[in-house]
Amino acid sequence: MSDQDPARAQLADATTPLIRNAWYVVARADEITRAPLGRDVMETSLVLYRGEDGAPVALQNRCCHRSFPLAHGSLEGDGIRCGYHGLLYARDGRCIEIPMQDKIPPHLCLRAYPLVERGPFVWAWFGAADAADEDLLPHPAWLGAPDWDIYIGYLLINASYVHMHENLLDLSHLSFLHPKTFGTPEYARAPVELAIKGTDIQVWRRVECQLPDIYAVPLQWQGCRAERSSGSQFVAPGLHVNTGILRNLERAATADEALPTIRVAQLITPIDRTHLHYWFAGCRNFARGRPDIDDFMRSAQIKAFTEDQFAMEEIARMQRVDGHTPHTEMHIPTDAAGLAMRRHLRALAAREAL
Amino acid sequence: MSDQDPARAQLADATTPLIRNAWYVVARADEITRAPLGRDVMETSLVLYRGEDGAPVALQNRCCHRSFPLAHGSLEGDGIRCGYHGLLYARDGRCIEIPMQDKIPPHLCLRAYPLVERGPFVWAWFGAADAADEDLLPHPAWLGAPDWDIYIGYLLINASYVHMHENLLDLSHLSFLHPKTFGTPEYARAPVELAIKGTDIQVWRRVECQLPDIYAVPLQWQGCRAERSSGSQFVAPGLHVNTGILRNLERAATADEALPTIRVAQLITPIDRTHLHYWFAGCRNFARGRPDIDDFMRSAQIKAFTEDQFAMEEIARMQRVDGHTPHTEMHIPTDAAGLAMRRHLRALAAREAL
Amino acid sequence: MSDQDPARAQLADATTPLIRNAWYVVARADEITRAPLGRDVMETSLVLYRGEDGAPVALQNRCCHRSFPLAHGSLEGDGIRCGYHGLLYARDGRCIEIPMQDKIPPHLCLRAYPLVERGPFVWAWFGAADAADEDLLPHPAWLGAPDWDIYIGYLLINASYVHMHENLLDLSHLSFLHPKTFGTPEYARAPVELAIKGTDIQVWRRVECQLPDIYAVPLQWQGCRAERSSGSQFVAPGLHVNTGILRNLERAATADEALPTIRVAQLITPIDRTHLHYWFAGCRNFARGRPDIDDFMRSAQIKAFTEDQFAMEEIARMQRVDGHTPHTEMHIPTDAAGLAMRRHLRALAAREAL
Repeated sequence: MSDQDPARAQLADATTPLIRNAWYVVARADEITRAPLGRDVMETSLVLYRGEDGAPVALQNRCCHRSFPLAHGSLEGDGIRCGYHGLLYARDGRCIEIPMQDKIPPHLCLRAYPLVERGPFVWAWFGAADAADEDLLPHPAWLGAPDWDIYIGYLLINASYVHMHENLLDLSHLSFLHPKTFGTPEYARAPVELAIKGTDIQVWRRVECQLPDIYAVPLQWQGCRAERSSGSQFVAPGLHVNTGILRNLERAATADEALPTIRVAQLITPIDRTHLHYWFAGCRNFARGRPDIDDFMRSAQIKAFTEDQFAMEEIARMQRVDGHTPHTEMHIPTDAAGLAMRRHLRALAAREAL
Repeated sequence: MSDQDPARAQLADATTPLIRNAWYVVARADEITRAPLGRDVMETSLVLYRGEDGAPVALQNRCCHRSFPLAHGSLEGDGIRCGYHGLLYARDGRCIEIPMQDKIPPHLCLRAYPLVERGPFVWAWFGAADAADEDLLPHPAWLGAPDWDIYIGYLLINASYVHMHENLLDLSHLSFLHPKTFGTPEYARAPVELAIKGTDIQVWRRVECQLPDIYAVPLQWQGCRAERSSGSQFVAPGLHVNTGILRNLERAATADEALPTIRVAQLITPIDRTHLHYWFAGCRNFARGRPDIDDFMRSAQIKAFTEDQFAMEEIARMQRVDGHTPHTEMHIPTDAAGLAMRRHLRALAAREAL
Repeated sequence: MSDQDPARAQLADATTPLIRNAWYVVARADEITRAPLGRDVMETSLVLYRGEDGAPVALQNRCCHRSFPLAHGSLEGDGIRCGYHGLLYARDGRCIEIPMQDKIPPHLCLRAYPLVERGPFVWAWFGAADAADEDLLPHPAWLGAPDWDIYIGYLLINASYVHMHENLLDLSHLSFLHPKTFGTPEYARAPVELAIKGTDIQVWRRVECQLPDIYAVPLQWQGCRAERSSGSQFVAPGLHVNTGILRNLERAATADEALPTIRVAQLITPIDRTHLHYWFAGCRNFARGRPDIDDFMRSAQIKAFTEDQFAMEEIARMQRVDGHTPHTEMHIPTDAAGLAMRRHLRALAAREAL
């Protein structure tokens, strides 16, 4: 398959325009307070704060007068005053006061971004505000639900969000990139089950193995044979979900006992085409009420995700260093889910370009 | 006003070519000695030194043979010898010796830049040498004059000199960006007086207030009500002047007593379109002969100008981060002086492009 | 001579495409082991290792599947397995195993680079593999030969390899750039002898002087008058040779005594057009069997070559800073050898572009 191949042209990569008609996490809910917070996302800069009613607000960070970041300004009631010339903006972005001026030019307003706060995260919509449909929010019900214990982590990754999604959709790399964290040798030999229905793109693998410590320690299953079913699902440009369902093969579960399950929401927010915010929230139905287990699993996951970060950033470096050499990306059968996802993102981008 | 608006197209900004037919400070006089000094200014690199008569010399720093900087060479009489192949240049830039060669190619010469040393600074002309008119030198008579005490400071600012001039012409930001240094809350409410006569662009504001420490301490007026008249003047691409005239409202001045006055010459020299050298010289007619007051005022001014630097550099960052988002710069009435200055710089650049 | 001059257009410079049909050193032989080594050269990234038979292997470092560097993978027999998805490549670059796949797409292979190990270095060919002619290898017979003692050093230089060759071909800079290391004042006055025969480009100079310490100390000739014949030869894009032949003018040599001679092989390998690897191997026929003299001469040479590095990098900086100013590179008679070499490299590049 060559660069000239029409099929390849249909795959999103690090040069594809970002998808704006989508919801993306812009902050953990507890990061947004009554002190303005600047955050760069989706090739734009936002200022985030809470109004007097506690609801989060996202405005364009760049003052429309002289481009000073509003994040350095101060809140006044529901509004925010620029720290350079004192322009005061309402929470809907309209300028409502200019010091010493009677009249305010009618176009003097900041873009406001629709937000939804749901569980531990706040999501923003980057397309046209009137197209922001809360029903499209990919927040899964279990994320932040009381019957799941949760830990949250974060990494800043200098790579394309397309490559990150592809990496997460691909369970075949676990034995090679993550042999000491997530992967066990059995993974490389386990058959993969693709489930691609339109834009619902999932991959599943089932192995019998000794679980890696990240699961074995919280379950106290070290040394036991277990069945591990792992699923990866591309949900939306801003969300990926990994699921692990575990069964101890040396102990019978009681009839009413739910299988130990971990779901990891991977909140992927492009900063631009080659940098991304990566929040992850691990939710489990076992070893509950144990902050020490939260810490243990978060540490183990950060260690494993740092391996992904290393791979993503090294790939970006190869693309730069080797940029003069003609290169054709080759595919293998286990890439099918990733390719479906990249075709989907490419189609979304093409639609937005119309 | 949109990006397509013809009026906007007439405003200089960080993309406008630099104005070459103008004088700019290239160094403090005491920086130029018998040891060659390299300095990058106006998208070019200079070597500066003093001839045997003590007069300053500015030559193109890039050797016309193999581009090694002459600043790493050594002086021989009035000339400078390149530290790479030993070519010797006279102070007018002509190559006068090539080791082991009898003939010197006639075009082998460095560009020499007309200089004027005046008071504490040395100014260079970057247009055609025969157009260098010392009468156009914007050096004000009081700068370095014996009846004014002086302190000098310097900052390197990673921003456009156009934005720096606009910032200095705008007294409305004092209460917001400089509340703890220059600004007092009264400033935001004081009427501004514009005085735009052709290319003489000035702004004045008068407030009654308790003076900020930078003035109150040297005058020993802490806690007194005072009148503060502040003026900002765009003089030339390379010079801005701020003036403060102070009157104690709780003490009558004697008839023959000059009002305490501070004049700050702001020497603005673009390094390129997005970086600038910023020298400032504060001259006062009060608290004279007091090096401790020099130090106190220089420190206070550096603190305040560092706030300007922060604003300029954050604005430059916003323009980069937010570069993908369509943006229209909006204006407010107090921008009138800055807009006049930007229109003027734009017209100068257009004239130079002919 | 202006930028528009057709003669100038014939000179290679920092913008000229690299010459691929040539041998370049990619590593010291002892750097290549059974642990994979990543190395960026010639606008490409290589992974280097030794096969089970001990012979060196160079493959494209960028996995053709998802671009992860193979240098982070692991060796299996003669092959290398990618650390991301486990693809196994043979030493000829063919993919020979994909975990869990029966079929291997036929085009799944890495580019393999012809290598020759000769003495202390390993050389690679970057043109078409079938054009790799070992007879073109510029390795000189004395490099690594048992009758010459050797020391090796290395510098990474942020400059064009064209400028580096030009610098090495030019003996006229020794007195100016290297007065405290290589140069003695006599050098500036010694006549230069050019020997340009087609692509064999050499420069020779003979001076009578007190030798600089780098030679005087190992020979114990401090304070003696000596004759020093120095030659510089451009051999190939990847090799430059400097020769020094020394004769003590205060002591008669016996009839059967070879003159003390030092030959320095300068292995110049572009990383890209503005960065280069610079290995150098100093070979001498005097003060033999003396590791302390190896260390002394290596240190002295690194000190002198660091002066060249400084010049090359400052020139590159000047070209950037002064890029807006029109500039014409001027030549002097002693540049003749360098210009011949630059004309030659330009012609090679033009031929490769066909």
